[in-house]
Amino acid sequence: MSSQPLRIVVIGGSAAGPKAAAKARRMDEHAEITLIQREPDLSMASCGFPYYVGGTFDDRNMLVCTPAGIVRDPAFYGKAKRIQALVRTEATEIDRVAKTVTYRDLPTGEQSTIPYDRLVIATGATPLRPSVPGIELDGVTTLHSMADADALRAVRDERKTTKAVVVGGGLIGFEVCEALRLAGIHTTVIEKTRQILPFLDPDLSKLVENHVRAHGPDIIVGNGVAELLGDNGKLVGVKLDNGTELPCEVAVIAVGVRPNVKLAQAAGIEIGPVGGIRVNEYMQTSDPDIYAVGDCVECTSLVSGKAVRAPYGDLANLQGRVAGQNLVNEGSARFPGIIQTGICKIFDYAVGFTGLSAKDAREAGFDDIETAIISGLDIPGYMSGKLLISKLVADRKTGRILGFQCIGPGDVSKRVATVAMAIRGKLTVDDMVNADLPYAPPYSLAIDHVISSAQVMDNKLQGRMRGLSASEVKQRVDAGADCFILDTRSPHEFEETRLGIGETLIPLGALRDRLGELPQDKSKEIILYCKISLRGYEGAAILDAHGWTNVKVMEGGVVAWPFAKEK
Amino acid sequence: MSSQPLRIVVIGGSAAGPKAAAKARRMDEHAEITLIQREPDLSMASCGFPYYVGGTFDDRNMLVCTPAGIVRDPAFYGKAKRIQALVRTEATEIDRVAKTVTYRDLPTGEQSTIPYDRLVIATGATPLRPSVPGIELDGVTTLHSMADADALRAVRDERKTTKAVVVGGGLIGFEVCEALRLAGIHTTVIEKTRQILPFLDPDLSKLVENHVRAHGPDIIVGNGVAELLGDNGKLVGVKLDNGTELPCEVAVIAVGVRPNVKLAQAAGIEIGPVGGIRVNEYMQTSDPDIYAVGDCVECTSLVSGKAVRAPYGDLANLQGRVAGQNLVNEGSARFPGIIQTGICKIFDYAVGFTGLSAKDAREAGFDDIETAIISGLDIPGYMSGKLLISKLVADRKTGRILGFQCIGPGDVSKRVATVAMAIRGKLTVDDMVNADLPYAPPYSLAIDHVISSAQVMDNKLQGRMRGLSASEVKQRVDAGADCFILDTRSPHEFEETRLGIGETLIPLGALRDRLGELPQDKSKEIILYCKISLRGYEGAAILDAHGWTNVKVMEGGVVAWPFAKEK
Repeated sequence: MSSQPLRIVVIGGSAAGPKAAAKARRMDEHAEITLIQREPDLSMASCGFPYYVGGTFDDRNMLVCTPAGIVRDPAFYGKAKRIQALVRTEATEIDRVAKTVTYRDLPTGEQSTIPYDRLVIATGATPLRPSVPGIELDGVTTLHSMADADALRAVRDERKTTKAVVVGGGLIGFEVCEALRLAGIHTTVIEKTRQILPFLDPDLSKLVENHVRAHGPDIIVGNGVAELLGDNGKLVGVKLDNGTELPCEVAVIAVGVRPNVKLAQAAGIEIGPVGGIRVNEYMQTSDPDIYAVGDCVECTSLVSGKAVRAPYGDLANLQGRVAGQNLVNEGSARFPGIIQTGICKIFDYAVGFTGLSAKDAREAGFDDIETAIISGLDIPGYMSGKLLISKLVADRKTGRILGFQCIGPGDVSKRVATVAMAIRGKLTVDDMVNADLPYAPPYSLAIDHVISSAQVMDNKLQGRMRGLSASEVKQRVDAGADCFILDTRSPHEFEETRLGIGETLIPLGALRDRLGELPQDKSKEIILYCKISLRGYEGAAILDAHGWTNVKVMEGGVVAWPFAKEK
Repeated sequence: MSSQPLRIVVIGGSAAGPKAAAKARRMDEHAEITLIQREPDLSMASCGFPYYVGGTFDDRNMLVCTPAGIVRDPAFYGKAKRIQALVRTEATEIDRVAKTVTYRDLPTGEQSTIPYDRLVIATGATPLRPSVPGIELDGVTTLHSMADADALRAVRDERKTTKAVVVGGGLIGFEVCEALRLAGIHTTVIEKTRQILPFLDPDLSKLVENHVRAHGPDIIVGNGVAELLGDNGKLVGVKLDNGTELPCEVAVIAVGVRPNVKLAQAAGIEIGPVGGIRVNEYMQTSDPDIYAVGDCVECTSLVSGKAVRAPYGDLANLQGRVAGQNLVNEGSARFPGIIQTGICKIFDYAVGFTGLSAKDAREAGFDDIETAIISGLDIPGYMSGKLLISKLVADRKTGRILGFQCIGPGDVSKRVATVAMAIRGKLTVDDMVNADLPYAPPYSLAIDHVISSAQVMDNKLQGRMRGLSASEVKQRVDAGADCFILDTRSPHEFEETRLGIGETLIPLGALRDRLGELPQDKSKEIILYCKISLRGYEGAAILDAHGWTNVKVMEGGVVAWPFAKEK
């Protein structure tokens, strides 16, 4: 044991910082550890804010307490962890030569300087705010800090607000949208790009849009905010780029975050290509005595190999642990990178993703990918199974799984976790078609959704199935393309709901006897589908065998069709 | 296209057989496919039997119909799949030279012979029945066939039975136990060995035992059935090896199955070392024109490399698909092996496993393993998270994950699926500590249970934590060992419930100030724990740092303690 205790300073007390500090403490009981936090609270469960705002729980302390119910305040850090936690305190300068941090006590303005042997930068990220007139109005907020959560919870509790607008159609935007809806507030989500939820490919994103609308909120895509309208300093509406005015008393800005790198940058620490602090796999910055963790850093994608930003609470914790270990025992722990996995609850749907979407895969340089969209139940119908719709993305040459998106009322989270681990293990479609997963009727189909998904991908990669997405079919229909569309469901299902795109109904069981009703020109494009397109696929195999040469299956079937249907 | 269609015969119509036939049909529209099934039903969802018996659903047809609601009878197979399905038909002989199968129509006794180019054996397995007096009594049954399911469902519907005994404490035994309990029948499970649920290690198994008892049923371990007692041909009780007599009107035998290999064996097809039909990775038997799939075969464990039997419905389906593909296109699909993954619902608990338990790992020749038991919530407390208790097994030298067991009211199935995929990818503890899984409060903690589990394992492998299981602690206590036991929870928690094993309470936050109360002999064994042993672990780090040299953590804490507690 050295006579001089190791001096560790951690800047940032929200998630990654406290984790690094706590882990360092467990590694070295004798280190002097100081945590500098600008906000009044420490170690907040910020991913829980939407559920506090939406009324899933009412006790605010649950956001800042340990599993045993103790509030994680400076006294707790002092007692349980022997960490000096300074709150309402802002780090203003890092002197890498003197190895000191200067900080200011925010209530008093008093400046102090503290020396460090090892420093952790966990300065987080700041919500972006569009630079439009009215952004400073009362009623315009984000959902990023405890103060934001308190303010939005007050909106719920006061029951005065009737209309709200959420600016930004990403994960946080829709979590906020649901929370406001649960508070009885009519909410409209505004998304500047053509599509909500950018980590999804368009068809799945459109299905989520339909689901949100069915629960009350409105969504406007392809239209940004031009101005926030005020009256006496108070928000009264939002004006869109196209001139539309939406009256509202509350606007929540959720258009993303930018990493807080100023302090690091001012100290000459290297910033990476996508704007976060650059770190190696030990979470070490360009200064080997300084680590950085959480929303202020950039990570390496283990799928694309590229630098990416991934401001997620789980990664902040994992990185904090790695840094905490290396603070005491340099090079003893590694954070190799991420897959880019996420999930979000939106009313009765879960919306999850891992790895790359088709468009992200192409952008990342995978120029020969295959995709497979499937729909199906999560558990058997006799156990009241719920729907899952997903899209798997694989590299065509190697068969490697690159990404998976999954949505629906079914158990999405399990399927995304499963595929995330498959991607982490660099598994191929060949590996996944025979995955040995836990099967019993309360938890899975005999062939689980992720295996079915890999099987459909396998059929496509082996040339046994040619697929079209719902959008591709819709485009053909809208363009008046010369194709024959075949619905292979039962007459009963057809009566209940149909696509109304000029389709012909021939139930699968009758198909072999009714081949004469199909186009005589065997090269004509024939598109088959059923409820989930399993019978559609079986029908396609029959047509292939009888000499039709341009037979395709509309993947995911009727339930994955995101456009209007006839009833 | 050959002028002569391929002749495919499939023996067995329950799960693997129909799958092979249906896949072969999709691969080759022109093949002549015949399915020979002894039972009257086809393609039964036999894993759903306990839920039909227990009243989760009432419509028997749901066990034999497609997702679109069509009963999979011979007419359906004929129409939708152009497969000739012969039910109530028993295959009696395979002539490998003539390449024919002889079968008998069971109602008429008429014999016929059918030629094949490719044959699939999917003869399944037969429930074992102990050879004890009374085994033929009315009231003694298994839950294996549709007829069994019908009979047990009738027991529920007639509401006459008040007491039942389940013989065998495995997966099926407990599914049946729950179903009978839900039917209002007092049920006792008899297990000959010392432990229920043999795929679990003893501590976790004991926790499940406690859970079952809390729901009403009784469990007797270490005691076999000596005799089934009858009166006028009707079951009236079960007599155990130790002489105990349990009155009951129904006894369900669930002591495992043996693969049906007679037909294959008689035809000179090779049987493997663990008694199933031996197949290669194409599901091909020792005769290259004959495939075998489902409960009658043995598989290769991808973890141990050994031959194992794994009679599970999901694997039957996967194998059926592989065989179906190879029937038409030899060598085009592989089934490399299994992990040994399973799950079962037992009242409010799910009980799951993947890979090897500690005892199975040792038996399989892994002589240097490490284990980590943890408990924790599946999702945050503020989202009403539920408990998970799990045990991870890893190879100490390579860090490779070998197995995972997980039980509890929380979402077990997701965690088992996640680790199953990690094992499939041959991931190590190092890979798993930083897994990028889908995090949002409705679905996971910021650090998911499986990651925490890997982190604890990492701490143990790196020598930062020495652990003891609850059983190991209990043994020490019972033997009067000289150790100091330290509970680091709060006084409030201690008041509520305590282990009562001579422990001293020092809350973690006070530990540094009260080190004087600990044994002065720094080499004395000190065992710490808290509710889940996170604070216990933090306390251990403090004691290590202050010179105690024999400090251990009781893994899983109070919630994983399977023995009596004081309240």
